[in-house]
Amino acid sequence: MTKNATIKHALPITRQEDFAQWYQAVIAEAELAEESGVRGCMVIKPWGYGIWERIQKLMDERIKEAGVENCYFPLFIPLSYFTREAEHVEGFAKEMAVVTHHRLIGDGKGGLVPDPEAKLEEPLIVRPTSETVIGAAMARWIQSWRDLPLLTNQWANVVRWEMRTRMFLRTSEFLWQEGHTAHADEADAMVETLRALEMYRSFAEDVLAMPVVAGPKPENERFPGAVETFSIEAMMQDGKALQAGTSHYLGTTFSEAAGIRYQDKEGQQTLCHTTSWGVSTRMIGGVIMTHGDDDGLRTPPQIAPQQIVILPMLRDNDGDAALLEYCAQLRAKLAKLSVFDEKVRVLLDKRPGKATAKRWGWVKKGVPLILEIGGRDAEGGQVSVLRRDKLWREDGKANFVGMAQDDFVASAAAELEAIQTALHEEARERRDAQIERGISDLDGLAAYFAEDKAFPGWVELCWSRPTGAALDKVVEQLKALKLTIRNTPMDAAPAEGLCPFTGEPAVERILVARAY
Amino acid sequence: MTKNATIKHALPITRQEDFAQWYQAVIAEAELAEESGVRGCMVIKPWGYGIWERIQKLMDERIKEAGVENCYFPLFIPLSYFTREAEHVEGFAKEMAVVTHHRLIGDGKGGLVPDPEAKLEEPLIVRPTSETVIGAAMARWIQSWRDLPLLTNQWANVVRWEMRTRMFLRTSEFLWQEGHTAHADEADAMVETLRALEMYRSFAEDVLAMPVVAGPKPENERFPGAVETFSIEAMMQDGKALQAGTSHYLGTTFSEAAGIRYQDKEGQQTLCHTTSWGVSTRMIGGVIMTHGDDDGLRTPPQIAPQQIVILPMLRDNDGDAALLEYCAQLRAKLAKLSVFDEKVRVLLDKRPGKATAKRWGWVKKGVPLILEIGGRDAEGGQVSVLRRDKLWREDGKANFVGMAQDDFVASAAAELEAIQTALHEEARERRDAQIERGISDLDGLAAYFAEDKAFPGWVELCWSRPTGAALDKVVEQLKALKLTIRNTPMDAAPAEGLCPFTGEPAVERILVARAY
Repeated sequence: MTKNATIKHALPITRQEDFAQWYQAVIAEAELAEESGVRGCMVIKPWGYGIWERIQKLMDERIKEAGVENCYFPLFIPLSYFTREAEHVEGFAKEMAVVTHHRLIGDGKGGLVPDPEAKLEEPLIVRPTSETVIGAAMARWIQSWRDLPLLTNQWANVVRWEMRTRMFLRTSEFLWQEGHTAHADEADAMVETLRALEMYRSFAEDVLAMPVVAGPKPENERFPGAVETFSIEAMMQDGKALQAGTSHYLGTTFSEAAGIRYQDKEGQQTLCHTTSWGVSTRMIGGVIMTHGDDDGLRTPPQIAPQQIVILPMLRDNDGDAALLEYCAQLRAKLAKLSVFDEKVRVLLDKRPGKATAKRWGWVKKGVPLILEIGGRDAEGGQVSVLRRDKLWREDGKANFVGMAQDDFVASAAAELEAIQTALHEEARERRDAQIERGISDLDGLAAYFAEDKAFPGWVELCWSRPTGAALDKVVEQLKALKLTIRNTPMDAAPAEGLCPFTGEPAVERILVARAY
Repeated sequence: MTKNATIKHALPITRQEDFAQWYQAVIAEAELAEESGVRGCMVIKPWGYGIWERIQKLMDERIKEAGVENCYFPLFIPLSYFTREAEHVEGFAKEMAVVTHHRLIGDGKGGLVPDPEAKLEEPLIVRPTSETVIGAAMARWIQSWRDLPLLTNQWANVVRWEMRTRMFLRTSEFLWQEGHTAHADEADAMVETLRALEMYRSFAEDVLAMPVVAGPKPENERFPGAVETFSIEAMMQDGKALQAGTSHYLGTTFSEAAGIRYQDKEGQQTLCHTTSWGVSTRMIGGVIMTHGDDDGLRTPPQIAPQQIVILPMLRDNDGDAALLEYCAQLRAKLAKLSVFDEKVRVLLDKRPGKATAKRWGWVKKGVPLILEIGGRDAEGGQVSVLRRDKLWREDGKANFVGMAQDDFVASAAAELEAIQTALHEEARERRDAQIERGISDLDGLAAYFAEDKAFPGWVELCWSRPTGAALDKVVEQLKALKLTIRNTPMDAAPAEGLCPFTGEPAVERILVARAY
């Protein structure tokens, strides 16, 4: 009997069986989120929102460390702000929620309709992103070179009217942070664009344990209105790419539209160069598809709302009081520990119900360490430890390890660090093994992605960086294979050979992949 | 010469001259917020948003300590959710933003209009509050008595289409938290309603240093759909009342509308009893009008984004390096201190510009302690300390106190605590002196509020608690005097005498006041 045959996984479906359904199953079984009944919008449930709160806290610290100040800007953007920047509105006009009325009135049949008397003179757009409305504020705030750089950020909800939605990955409403900065010149703005990109790269790797490739996007994939767009791209377990964060150098596009000017040291009125950068609840989708397994989510310790859960095996008898007391003392000891420069987050789960049912609930949520404590453990000063990333024994049983309580307390912080590292290394090894660098022509590319393997990875191709119509042709060729150019990895080897699209000498390497 | 004659205040207008304009001046000069150009919406600037972040953090800790879990629910509410609860929609229908389209199209004249092809089948309301959409989730989540109580909260933006807006106090969009809970019966729901009320009362007093009166609102002031509404009411320096937080017992109103039912221990399907409770960015308006003075805001240390600001008096000469080094070391020492169970927040302001100009900027923002350090201070190990709540000497000079650095470091935490306490006591004494309890008839009430004093306070009246049409008549009588009933103070003395409105024996005491 093989190893897998003996294991009864916690999810109703495996990644191999159907990756998309498996993804939905993790979200449901780990109680991360659910459909809300409102088209394209989800309800983020406590465990999912707890992960977002962790991401917010740790990202916000990094944003503040960089000297960026948080503000809050309006949800609504007047239509006229949008029409100031033609390229920007072209990119977003297809998918925006439009507020046209400010009051409802009875329809005479017991229902309600927008009151025709309360039609807005100018429709308002629910922000899909805030360059235009923040640009208007920057124009008010910036007068002189002394006001630069202006570094601002907001945590907010945004709405893009998506036709096909998928929880966390693409929802009509999502939560994000959007940094917006203004600078005296291109050089300073580009430094900020790359600083934000590097902040995202290190955050993804160090906090989410999610390896990413950072680099500029091709011109056809730029943010509407951007001069240059950079992304971090993560490989999901099905080999597809997920754009997990972007940073844009916007040139003077939005400064021209909103009139963001400063008086330079020579007294000249000069346009600012602006940037914007953002990450969103999409990152949670990336975490699920990077670290999930056939038993649910494995939540990296840095972002786990609870890092350790203690499950007393209550028996509804006289022994329960002593057991609970033992668990409470253990919880108190663990809560005093620090890991990743913060207090350990530990929960004593005293809810009624069977310990095994509760165990599998926490396994599916991906708590890094689960402790089950029975009456005999309490008497003997023992704990029984289940490490979420080493869940199964070869015989198909849950891989509990018994040890003295003192030994566990002494090693718990190191164990959480080890889990964080192990998840990162596992994901990196898998990712690295699935980047193909040996393809140099289109037939090879087609063959690679036509292969009868469930989860092809990425192909790193050398190309000549065509632009305009020549790039459009490349995009069409790739589209026929359901492929897109993800970005130009900043740490790639030099290009060599000829571009498979143009036949010209290659100048750089690009990542080509299927993507979310 | 009087004391005031010698003082040159930092604001262009005083509270006595025009309280409403003074309020706007504090917001502008302390750089808390500004009009956004979007009707009724404000931009919250870094210092204002920093205060909100402090309120969020400290309130969120209290919410989580009570076992309430954070979630996130959709921004949009389908119209049909609203029509399920007649009273609720009646209360909100007048002021909601309605999304009717999901795409824009060119108008042929270079502008954009909502695309008639992209009209929503059912309009969406931008949430003014989330009882309906959270009720729909509760109906999915609750099956059995074991699922109760269900305790949830969200931090979110909401929109109410206000005709007259005033920054922080009444804006079309505002930020808040809204707690929503479901319980097995009225008793349990009422315990939660009162727990939230007490959480708000203690938060206002202990964190915002803002004395409040907690109690039930009269039935005409209830939240639409609520069985009972409780509020905390704070007195602003102009004597007006500000409702700074509310907690509602909703009975089965929303359970009936959304079908929130559970199977009780006997197997019966039973309606839940729900509550909701919220505080918003309005609290910041309360802080301004409680603690502001003619020199700007005085920010209570608990919510000050920076508690201590160090201003080196740079001279653009060789001495600056040593001065900056001294200040950096001082900053490091102060940052290691703790106060209110958190690290002290201290900023070294190295921006270019004159120290006195920078000083007045921080005075207007209300930083509790400002340190100015000159070259001689650095050489002598001294600091020069300005306490924001003791700003002026009798001779009209800024009240700097020189002391040894070590002494300041040793006393800084206690000094911050003292400022927090002093602000609270000052506000409480002023409030208590302005509650009039000696009025027992309507002529006396009219005379009190007709008096030629700029800022009348509140009147505590004994009344017979009329309902229905009799209450409507009382409300009309008060409206003629521009007065409203704020609430029934829970800690008031027993009622005595006859009700001035009905002539019947009084049963309780109410607060009557002008209000924001």
